[in-house]
Amino acid sequence: MSGNQQVSRESEPAAREPAARRSDATRAAILAAARERFAADGYEKATIRAIARDARIDPSMVMRYFGNKEGLFAAAVTIELSLPDPATIPREELGRTLMRHFLSLWEENEVLTALLRAGATDAAAAERMQGVLREQLVPVVLGTCPDPAQAPVRAALCASQVLGLALTRYVLKFPGSVALEPEQIVDWLGPTVQRYLTAERP
Amino acid sequence: MSGNQQVSRESEPAAREPAARRSDATRAAILAAARERFAADGYEKATIRAIARDARIDPSMVMRYFGNKEGLFAAAVTIELSLPDPATIPREELGRTLMRHFLSLWEENEVLTALLRAGATDAAAAERMQGVLREQLVPVVLGTCPDPAQAPVRAALCASQVLGLALTRYVLKFPGSVALEPEQIVDWLGPTVQRYLTAERP
Repeated sequence: MSGNQQVSRESEPAAREPAARRSDATRAAILAAARERFAADGYEKATIRAIARDARIDPSMVMRYFGNKEGLFAAAVTIELSLPDPATIPREELGRTLMRHFLSLWEENEVLTALLRAGATDAAAAERMQGVLREQLVPVVLGTCPDPAQAPVRAALCASQVLGLALTRYVLKFPGSVALEPEQIVDWLGPTVQRYLTAERP
Repeated sequence: MSGNQQVSRESEPAAREPAARRSDATRAAILAAARERFAADGYEKATIRAIARDARIDPSMVMRYFGNKEGLFAAAVTIELSLPDPATIPREELGRTLMRHFLSLWEENEVLTALLRAGATDAAAAERMQGVLREQLVPVVLGTCPDPAQAPVRAALCASQVLGLALTRYVLKFPGSVALEPEQIVDWLGPTVQRYLTAERP
């Protein structure tokens, strides 16, 4: 599933260091160009050709380093939600605090919208989103939901509301969703997230 | 925006009827093949070439009738939510009833998943989803929310939860979402939809 993986240049002997440094610089230039293109154009419209041009490199080199567009996207885009520790938040404020946090992430970070677009059509991007959920949201939910065994389900319920808002507001651009002020979204969706996190049962 | 529109064959004089009938039959064959392909393969993977082959027709004819893949999708796929009339449902059951209705639509109808995938990357498909919301969901919400002026916002809030569930369960396939039984989804999400439809304020 993971495609053709190359051994990292960093693991080569010290004698190759100048070449390795050149290689690192090339890789870094491609990744920087990819991040800008994916953020500006979205996943679908950002082409390998345009990214290569931005990085002043031949498109075949991009393929050599990253295999394909999905591989480049996965390497270029690190999703760091930086979710707050629930232990530091009054329990009755969990839903609103998390909702406000997610909303400011989405408002500021077009990469999240690009990942959502990619996840809708590409299995590798969908797997990355599963990874973000598993590694970053489930641990937070573990500290808030009544039964730890339910953490994956509670996290998925929260994700359904947070991603649904992102989908309707930033991707599908439903006028009724675009019209909402951020604090109105927190007022409406915060209690929903609160319930998915903390309610004993539905 | 709407591309090159052809005058409908139906509007030609009666003398041309045999040709018009052939044309109608071709059009119908393409649409039938397209519906099956979009449902089976999803929007992205369904190709004009494969649809033309299924319809036993040249791909150039598909383009001549429908312009491009988006145009074909829009013509092939009619989204009929058949939402229940809220006047026939006890007020406290609105959220659960609508949620159960949406869920059975999604469980049975792969076209909805295809439209969601398409809407994430294609502006024409996103506009179609806006149309479904405006023409089919907003009228239902008008009969349930306290202030008719808020109907577009209330409908968008409901859509954020319903489409978010569809996204996480059918497209991204988050294990915690896939694991839920339909009735568990109704238990968890029904009260959310109820609140978006009927609450005086957040």
